[in-house]
Amino acid sequence: MFYHVQNLINPIVDDQPDPSAANALQEGLGGQFGEMRTMMQFLFQSFNFRGDGIPYLDLIQGIGIEEISHVELITKTISRLLDGAPEYHGDKFETPGKGGKATLEVGKEAQNPHHFIMGAQGALPVDAAGNPWSGSYVHNHGNLVLDLMDNLVLEATGRLQKCRIYQMSDNKTLRATVSFLIARDEAHQMAFAKALETLGVDWNKALPVPKFDASKFPEVKKLMDAGIHREQYHFRLDSSQMEKIFSGKSPIDDGTELVTLKEPRESYPNPIAPERPEEFAPGLDPEMQAMADALSEFKEKTLKDMTRKAGSDPSKRKE
Amino acid sequence: MFYHVQNLINPIVDDQPDPSAANALQEGLGGQFGEMRTMMQFLFQSFNFRGDGIPYLDLIQGIGIEEISHVELITKTISRLLDGAPEYHGDKFETPGKGGKATLEVGKEAQNPHHFIMGAQGALPVDAAGNPWSGSYVHNHGNLVLDLMDNLVLEATGRLQKCRIYQMSDNKTLRATVSFLIARDEAHQMAFAKALETLGVDWNKALPVPKFDASKFPEVKKLMDAGIHREQYHFRLDSSQMEKIFSGKSPIDDGTELVTLKEPRESYPNPIAPERPEEFAPGLDPEMQAMADALSEFKEKTLKDMTRKAGSDPSKRKE
Amino acid sequence: MFYHVQNLINPIVDDQPDPSAANALQEGLGGQFGEMRTMMQFLFQSFNFRGDGIPYLDLIQGIGIEEISHVELITKTISRLLDGAPEYHGDKFETPGKGGKATLEVGKEAQNPHHFIMGAQGALPVDAAGNPWSGSYVHNHGNLVLDLMDNLVLEATGRLQKCRIYQMSDNKTLRATVSFLIARDEAHQMAFAKALETLGVDWNKALPVPKFDASKFPEVKKLMDAGIHREQYHFRLDSSQMEKIFSGKSPIDDGTELVTLKEPRESYPNPIAPERPEEFAPGLDPEMQAMADALSEFKEKTLKDMTRKAGSDPSKRKE
Amino acid sequence: MFYHVQNLINPIVDDQPDPSAANALQEGLGGQFGEMRTMMQFLFQSFNFRGDGIPYLDLIQGIGIEEISHVELITKTISRLLDGAPEYHGDKFETPGKGGKATLEVGKEAQNPHHFIMGAQGALPVDAAGNPWSGSYVHNHGNLVLDLMDNLVLEATGRLQKCRIYQMSDNKTLRATVSFLIARDEAHQMAFAKALETLGVDWNKALPVPKFDASKFPEVKKLMDAGIHREQYHFRLDSSQMEKIFSGKSPIDDGTELVTLKEPRESYPNPIAPERPEEFAPGLDPEMQAMADALSEFKEKTLKDMTRKAGSDPSKRKE
Amino acid sequence: MFYHVQNLINPIVDDQPDPSAANALQEGLGGQFGEMRTMMQFLFQSFNFRGDGIPYLDLIQGIGIEEISHVELITKTISRLLDGAPEYHGDKFETPGKGGKATLEVGKEAQNPHHFIMGAQGALPVDAAGNPWSGSYVHNHGNLVLDLMDNLVLEATGRLQKCRIYQMSDNKTLRATVSFLIARDEAHQMAFAKALETLGVDWNKALPVPKFDASKFPEVKKLMDAGIHREQYHFRLDSSQMEKIFSGKSPIDDGTELVTLKEPRESYPNPIAPERPEEFAPGLDPEMQAMADALSEFKEKTLKDMTRKAGSDPSKRKE
Amino acid sequence: MFYHVQNLINPIVDDQPDPSAANALQEGLGGQFGEMRTMMQFLFQSFNFRGDGIPYLDLIQGIGIEEISHVELITKTISRLLDGAPEYHGDKFETPGKGGKATLEVGKEAQNPHHFIMGAQGALPVDAAGNPWSGSYVHNHGNLVLDLMDNLVLEATGRLQKCRIYQMSDNKTLRATVSFLIARDEAHQMAFAKALETLGVDWNKALPVPKFDASKFPEVKKLMDAGIHREQYHFRLDSSQMEKIFSGKSPIDDGTELVTLKEPRESYPNPIAPERPEEFAPGLDPEMQAMADALSEFKEKTLKDMTRKAGSDPSKRKE
Repeated sequence: MFYHVQNLINPIVDDQPDPSAANALQEGLGGQFGEMRTMMQFLFQSFNFRGDGIPYLDLIQGIGIEEISHVELITKTISRLLDGAPEYHGDKFETPGKGGKATLEVGKEAQNPHHFIMGAQGALPVDAAGNPWSGSYVHNHGNLVLDLMDNLVLEATGRLQKCRIYQMSDNKTLRATVSFLIARDEAHQMAFAKALETLGVDWNKALPVPKFDASKFPEVKKLMDAGIHREQYHFRLDSSQMEKIFSGKSPIDDGTELVTLKEPRESYPNPIAPERPEEFAPGLDPEMQAMADALSEFKEKTLKDMTRKAGSDPSKRKE
Repeated sequence: MFYHVQNLINPIVDDQPDPSAANALQEGLGGQFGEMRTMMQFLFQSFNFRGDGIPYLDLIQGIGIEEISHVELITKTISRLLDGAPEYHGDKFETPGKGGKATLEVGKEAQNPHHFIMGAQGALPVDAAGNPWSGSYVHNHGNLVLDLMDNLVLEATGRLQKCRIYQMSDNKTLRATVSFLIARDEAHQMAFAKALETLGVDWNKALPVPKFDASKFPEVKKLMDAGIHREQYHFRLDSSQMEKIFSGKSPIDDGTELVTLKEPRESYPNPIAPERPEEFAPGLDPEMQAMADALSEFKEKTLKDMTRKAGSDPSKRKE
Repeated sequence: MFYHVQNLINPIVDDQPDPSAANALQEGLGGQFGEMRTMMQFLFQSFNFRGDGIPYLDLIQGIGIEEISHVELITKTISRLLDGAPEYHGDKFETPGKGGKATLEVGKEAQNPHHFIMGAQGALPVDAAGNPWSGSYVHNHGNLVLDLMDNLVLEATGRLQKCRIYQMSDNKTLRATVSFLIARDEAHQMAFAKALETLGVDWNKALPVPKFDASKFPEVKKLMDAGIHREQYHFRLDSSQMEKIFSGKSPIDDGTELVTLKEPRESYPNPIAPERPEEFAPGLDPEMQAMADALSEFKEKTLKDMTRKAGSDPSKRKE
Repeated sequence: MFYHVQNLINPIVDDQPDPSAANALQEGLGGQFGEMRTMMQFLFQSFNFRGDGIPYLDLIQGIGIEEISHVELITKTISRLLDGAPEYHGDKFETPGKGGKATLEVGKEAQNPHHFIMGAQGALPVDAAGNPWSGSYVHNHGNLVLDLMDNLVLEATGRLQKCRIYQMSDNKTLRATVSFLIARDEAHQMAFAKALETLGVDWNKALPVPKFDASKFPEVKKLMDAGIHREQYHFRLDSSQMEKIFSGKSPIDDGTELVTLKEPRESYPNPIAPERPEEFAPGLDPEMQAMADALSEFKEKTLKDMTRKAGSDPSKRKE
Repeated sequence: MFYHVQNLINPIVDDQPDPSAANALQEGLGGQFGEMRTMMQFLFQSFNFRGDGIPYLDLIQGIGIEEISHVELITKTISRLLDGAPEYHGDKFETPGKGGKATLEVGKEAQNPHHFIMGAQGALPVDAAGNPWSGSYVHNHGNLVLDLMDNLVLEATGRLQKCRIYQMSDNKTLRATVSFLIARDEAHQMAFAKALETLGVDWNKALPVPKFDASKFPEVKKLMDAGIHREQYHFRLDSSQMEKIFSGKSPIDDGTELVTLKEPRESYPNPIAPERPEEFAPGLDPEMQAMADALSEFKEKTLKDMTRKAGSDPSKRKE
Repeated sequence: MFYHVQNLINPIVDDQPDPSAANALQEGLGGQFGEMRTMMQFLFQSFNFRGDGIPYLDLIQGIGIEEISHVELITKTISRLLDGAPEYHGDKFETPGKGGKATLEVGKEAQNPHHFIMGAQGALPVDAAGNPWSGSYVHNHGNLVLDLMDNLVLEATGRLQKCRIYQMSDNKTLRATVSFLIARDEAHQMAFAKALETLGVDWNKALPVPKFDASKFPEVKKLMDAGIHREQYHFRLDSSQMEKIFSGKSPIDDGTELVTLKEPRESYPNPIAPERPEEFAPGLDPEMQAMADALSEFKEKTLKDMTRKAGSDPSKRKE
């Protein structure tokens, strides 16, 4: 059974909209090796787990739970990169159509016009070429050694692709999330490599994939210096045997140690996106808005809280 | 950010394997109107939410979190319905192949042979016709009224299909899970209908879909008598404004009241599936098994705990 | 612009339900070479037509219009073959669930369980292996010679597959429709072969595909004796130049003549399917039914008309 | 059984080619909520209809027939937006290749290169991201209330997406068709909302989706002033009971009245597209062209008719 | 550039038709981890290879070439398992239809009716659930370590699935081919594991996947005793550096040695399938047959050769 | 059984990178009418062939073998068109990331970002709109006349699409390969047209599709002057009866003669692509590179051979 707190696992960093960066990042969300797959693959492997190797189950499932929070983070990031891309600063509800002006022109030229036609400048469950995510991406062979090797390949590919996406834009909103995922995918590589080490494999210097000089990726390096690429969280409200595997020397023998924690040491505000009248989102007219407002006696207070936590009123972000 | 406890939202009830019932139930998991879609649709709507209607956000997201637990429940149920279907009672690892006997013959005649070839008698992210789940099922229009109406249609269709699946087998493992989901899908219909009611719609007697005499579905009736079709849980470890919508008179005006709770009043043991050597699952040979066993000083204790919680040792279930 | 009359292009012949025959016939509806494709392919070719070869346009479009009526016929036939397959003879609305009986058990063992879970014992836009119809089936190359050759291959494949389906069951409902389509697909082969003949090709004895001794297919022979395999209809309420191509000697030089008509010489009643309470179809409860009934002062009269035209009350068909 | 007249339901308005607008409009044709789906969904629901609610059948089917004419209109519009996009003004047949010049360079940079490679600057059965239309889009649940609600969501989404596409370009060819479809989708929302009203639902002010100030969409406003958003046509050559539902007060209680007609009050010329030699379309060489010409003694007259009806010779349109 | 000899890499062994075994074997041909994927994945990796690691290129490409011959073998095997399944023993061309008898009834009940409707009792490029093969299965990451690990997972999964299929039927036609592929997939596991060993990984006892007691799979054991699971062929008519990797001690340190050869030590006759008149295959009528016969003055001789090589006239196989 | 030589069937001509031309050419590789389909369609038809028409089998299969070499050629061409597109001239391994510079920015704006995210600037098994290749493209009807007609349509469409792609760029790398394929697709049209001629069809002037004045396509004309559009190769190491069909007068009666050869008169060097550190391809770090180098005592010699054969060191190509 699953629970939630309305915080993010990494902060959304503010920068200009960048719809083609948003589209590239879709690969990390809905691509064949993206977060929707890791989440579903690890959850299916957990739910269908056979045998008494509880520490392996707890390791796979714990990472699977983290991946739901990655889906949350990457979705929010894509939405932020798209939000306001039409460079349209109108007031609520009087503006769509606007006497015939083509205020959404950017949408027909976008890498994926669906971001503006199907969604309201928000993330979609598709990859960077516009193909919808497919259940056939989920591999759950039932054989423990094979499932662990498949998971390792999956995490290595995820990290490789994100290292390529990192180089596609220096937008700070993109980079903050991508760098975090590069660091976490390395932790997950460690997890599955260590699990295979307990079953006999010696990885020597073959990992991680890809190899690079971290000092060339400054945002990533900062996170590695903080050690988050050697931590793993189990996110269990009861208890977990993950630590029996994820502890001791790193499987690539670089002198680092693996650390299991219940959850990340910090969490971050989860900003709400502003209205986009040209998308009819949320599209309540004044009469319906009044009914909706009546529901919430604490509305003002809530917004204040959001503002305080998010550092700035997201509906007033400069575009 | 998401958390987990290793319990189920409804119990797995013991009965014989029934692979074609398992296949029918795949529709409820990986079908176009199944739990994977409800989970993903509500999570995407939450992550991409626009505007200050926090109670609507909390309602949609809270149901989305519950759907992850439904995916967990239905996956476990399908696996249980498949488990042991080949009627093969071997000891670990000596038995696959067995000098040429066709011990998995049932697999080639199964509704979906993938249950025995790709998976190890476990659930797959596909529908009852073997089509993989698709990201195109997720509808997130960005317009609040439309998203609520789409969600209502989704929940109504989910309940309709489960009422049809209920009638396809009297297997108790199938019925327990399906009846629970019929009751919960009614609660979710209430949730989205009530949200639309706050925006002006009066449903009169049009809901729920489908209409039936509950006394003809005894397992469902029992759950309705306990009132779970009028409860909704928010599963938030911080706090939620769901109750601002989900409370007061039911939107179909049958005299019932809606109740918001943090979580279900009870949760249930989460049994681990036994080894299936004919599937090479988990496929550890004695040498690897020894390495794995060494990881877990509490292994014996853990299994005892499982047994105690699950009521019976699942690896000894009669087949 | 399109118009309709509530009649069928060929009669639905009464026989027992046969769900696996229904599933085989899905290939003729939603398969890669089925009626949905012929309809869409010919309509797209017409709408995108270039140049002044109006007789070619009118030929392609006229056949395309007929294909909509074939989709109507084959859908009705599949529904009839499925209807009542669960062998359940209940009264309206009291019966689904029925205190726990598995009245829809046939559904979980069906070739395509979707016929009973997604649809209410009705046709689906899928093929005989359960794959949904795809827009990629539609070929519209823009080059006239190539489009005509592609259409000829399409009609030849359609006829070949239906000749195979004919041999899969002697169910009269199936055979009546399949035999009609075999005869019509031959007419369409004649149409595209004749169009290519006007551009230079001499077919000699290579057509039709497949070749067979018609006397072995008695239902087909009867239709051929009536000459419908050498007629083509333009279904145009204004006028058509189809006849400039579709007239004179048949392109396979068997002594027959091609005849263009506005529409088939006869049309047939279009029976309405009865309620299926176990599918919650249509699922109106007494209260809603009363509201619906109030809409139609001529209701009784309508049903009488239907009965008179269809020859028997379809809701009373023996199952 | 279906019939046709070679007229369009709305005029094609002349303007410059705009291939990215053409691509955006593909969503309205082959997208998940486009006209191919509405057409197929309503036709499948009609063909599989159960029970004696003939007015509901006639309503759903009548709208389905109209959708075929929408597919015709939108296909023609996309083709017109693509036609001549390579800015190449050659004579027939001497020009493709042109000694090595890259006359189709625009094609490789187009939003969807298929418009120039697979099709000959004509519409395709795909969406704005290039995904082929899928049969899985068609929802036919068999339950009347649910089918009506699903249809309402479908029409609301179609209208929402077209309101977004409207804002993507001020091209007149695009706007004329999109504005017409916005108005018609509102009529269809009225139809399904009214049908649900007859079964008990009171919509109050929740519809239509989306809400906007029509004066900001001048082309739409003009059509609404003419009242076409409150008319529905049954397109039946025999007779229809649609009016029993579609009449009286509009379901959103804005003082308007619903009106059922046999067909639209006007229809419009259906222009034929000119040759495009760089696409080898239609690709008849002089010898074959002579054979084709011989078929049509009335050829010259036909072209004259076309010109007269279409207002200008489409093959001479300025590009 | 590629070449061919009309021989098979392993013999087709004669046994009764078994259409559901044929369907299970489709997973090994067109499944996500089947031979079509291995072939395409290794060829794409070879064609897109970067850098000067020629021995790695030659290893990957050599296995890719072998996979084309596996596609040939498995296609022939599936066709043989389907051939004659309708138990219909007719003479050429007089028999389809047969006055209305349902001679192809087995087709509508088959696991995949496409084997009898689309194909003429021959293999299809689909998996065991009827899903068409997809290009998205091909993984070519461009990173050498990752591509080798992905290939290892692919070969391990292929072998695991074939070990499961082995247990689904004791049909000799199925078993001969499946056992050969189990042995070859082990050789391929050795190849990629050895390549990773040259880059630092020590596999210890983790491979092969799956582990089993070979004496329980007698047909596999016989091939292993002959050593074919430790041989690899490069199939190059010029020369290859494969041996620089594939030689010396096996990577799983079981005392065996790896051996690189140009090609398998033996090859086998490639039988031609007989006519199937009920499928209209090949469907030449006497007139066309006479024209075809005239092409081949050596026809009789050819058939004699075939018979001599294949051991028995395949058109006379008992069904 | 299949064999290989490391040569290409046509030379790769050097020119600048052109990623949108690469993307257009993907249609010729992974499109519905591209080389992956021709290869698979002809191989499946060969492997499933029925009856004693050996010359037809040898014709279809011989062309199928050639198509594997076309897949090789077109894959190499696409990779060459992509290679170096980011205009990044770094040294090995020190450079990716590069302190935060967006060196791969071109990737996020590319027609298909997958070329830079999933692949390492290499070809993918997808079409020009990013859709993965599908097994449903393969048509193998089992009826000889129909299969030949389908193959003719396929080759005609392939040639038509390549004539359109030719006009999309004057890049020499693109043009060299496309022109060769236009010429070969014409030879293949001749092959299937001639095979149908032996069964009775007279093509007169209807072929080839498309018709054009070859002098406008200078690179194609040069190849036609050399006669390669009237040659066919069987690629058989044993022997072939292809010549019984492919000889004598061309089926379009233009005075040319058809010639069957074992293989093309010439073959060409097969250049190896250079490293791309920004893609982590192949991604060996110095330590792993040293291990890899140790495998190949002839490494230097090999590279010299490559250089000599390819005319220039491909890793030094100006970008």
